[in-house]
Amino acid sequence: MTQPRLNVLAIGDAIVDVISSTEDDFLTAEGLMKGSMRLIDAEEATRLYSHMGQARETSGGSAANTTAGIAAMGGRAGFVGQVATDQLGEIFAHDIRALGVEYETRPIDVEDPTGRCLILVTPDGQRTMNTFAGASHCLTVEALDEAQIADAAILYLEAYLWVPDRPRAAMLRAIEVAKAAGRKVALTLSDIACIDKRRDSFLDLIRGDGLDLLFANEAEIKALSGEGDFDAALAAFAEKVPLVVVTCSEKGAVAVERGRRVSVPAQRVDKVVDTTGAGDLFAAGFLCGQAEGRPLEDSLRIGSLCAAEIIAHFGARPEADLKALVA
Amino acid sequence: MTQPRLNVLAIGDAIVDVISSTEDDFLTAEGLMKGSMRLIDAEEATRLYSHMGQARETSGGSAANTTAGIAAMGGRAGFVGQVATDQLGEIFAHDIRALGVEYETRPIDVEDPTGRCLILVTPDGQRTMNTFAGASHCLTVEALDEAQIADAAILYLEAYLWVPDRPRAAMLRAIEVAKAAGRKVALTLSDIACIDKRRDSFLDLIRGDGLDLLFANEAEIKALSGEGDFDAALAAFAEKVPLVVVTCSEKGAVAVERGRRVSVPAQRVDKVVDTTGAGDLFAAGFLCGQAEGRPLEDSLRIGSLCAAEIIAHFGARPEADLKALVA
Repeated sequence: MTQPRLNVLAIGDAIVDVISSTEDDFLTAEGLMKGSMRLIDAEEATRLYSHMGQARETSGGSAANTTAGIAAMGGRAGFVGQVATDQLGEIFAHDIRALGVEYETRPIDVEDPTGRCLILVTPDGQRTMNTFAGASHCLTVEALDEAQIADAAILYLEAYLWVPDRPRAAMLRAIEVAKAAGRKVALTLSDIACIDKRRDSFLDLIRGDGLDLLFANEAEIKALSGEGDFDAALAAFAEKVPLVVVTCSEKGAVAVERGRRVSVPAQRVDKVVDTTGAGDLFAAGFLCGQAEGRPLEDSLRIGSLCAAEIIAHFGARPEADLKALVA
Repeated sequence: MTQPRLNVLAIGDAIVDVISSTEDDFLTAEGLMKGSMRLIDAEEATRLYSHMGQARETSGGSAANTTAGIAAMGGRAGFVGQVATDQLGEIFAHDIRALGVEYETRPIDVEDPTGRCLILVTPDGQRTMNTFAGASHCLTVEALDEAQIADAAILYLEAYLWVPDRPRAAMLRAIEVAKAAGRKVALTLSDIACIDKRRDSFLDLIRGDGLDLLFANEAEIKALSGEGDFDAALAAFAEKVPLVVVTCSEKGAVAVERGRRVSVPAQRVDKVVDTTGAGDLFAAGFLCGQAEGRPLEDSLRIGSLCAAEIIAHFGARPEADLKALVA
């Protein structure tokens, strides 16, 4: 088995974030649950956008943010995700490549435009996401470069993209290719709504020994396990998956690797501006630590540092020099 | 003469800013002069963008930023500027309307896309602008709503848009309409490059008693007057224009109204993040003060407060509650 060229190849939504500051009243008036993510169609995206305040646009997408973080730390990351042939697609492709992420998925000319996520950020820094997936859900097996998958130490999959059929089929094929090449497969659970929609499919992946690394937050791991108790939920997956990593917001993060449990506190942040991307950048830091062969606890710490950087400003892509921050 | 519905109607570039942090070395390598603005074509925009780091997109345009600031302070502002029928055009229209600015210019389906300004921000907070004007320079007389012009106390013109022929023709017609309705006409000089290209035309406007209010910075007023001495430059225009307002960066601002000269120091800012929009928001604050009938000195102070808010963050549209800030 040759040394892989990439540390991580991720497959996920290719999305531009449209971020607007708002008051809690606006969420109430729109019937939105703070902190949630929901999928919306083009019509609802147009309606909600017209009610939102002025916004700033930055490239996003959960797994894409993770690869951006890895590249910003000097890691070697690739990304697979679908944009359309439009201006937002150009912005997405520019930003991810500008950070040094290998991104070769060709834009496609479909009816749907490039996906976007309308993000409402309340004064407490919490983000409420309304995702119009657009072209992002048009990812098919044809978009995969199997040699690229075989050349990455870890294939990292985003659960958001596990819900629609075409991208899930692409991900299932990517898993086969990665496994055949002796690579590891990681999954991030993304959101409770994804778990509700694809529970059996996630459990099949875990039970079938297909998964080497599972990322989740507290609510997600409880939801997938069906356990109300955190420790029981963690134990349920730690038996099946060699490495389970769970973020618990201001309570820090915990990892269980082959029975050994390690936890770290959250990094202090002076002012939480926008929590968008906290989990994505935690995963980036953790994966970089692991790629450098650092101990589990160090990897968790680097993840926490990266999460702390991202929630101190608007947008889910790193602004500070992550390499210097981590050093 | 009826009470005008709008405090200010501005005509200017309709542009989305593409803002990227960079090091001084990048400016040197690209042969760019720090702090300058230059017009670039589509090809150069594509080339430069491909060399830039990841970016954030926010709506911009000099006079558009000024109307955004006025609306954010509760003033009644309108804007006229041309976008294309594309995603950046939708973003521009959304953002300016979301702030409460009256914006009725219909997007047009031309070869050029919506204009954008590639802004490189160095660690000292200085911005270097590379503007691909795109559809913005396709503004014609047909885009004007003469009733709207007649219904604004001040017609505010951006010198950037005075350079290309079609928009200048539209502005000349707008001046006629405003004058016929007994309204005031204001001009902001925008940039030295504009002055070099249209010196005679600006001087004609000033000498012909067409101008009631002139905004400039120190370098611009020196360039237009041909005087190397600031006081001499100021005096040259204060004789011709009833109200001249000049910003002098960290030295503050000065106004001369019918012979009376008033100046204020600059507002202190902890950390200058991005100077983009400082002059635009100064004008917004000043015009709001004047619209509320405040003394000249107060208007200058409000302008300084608004400029200080805008340079403390990325982007040229207000993020803080300007109304509260000024109160």
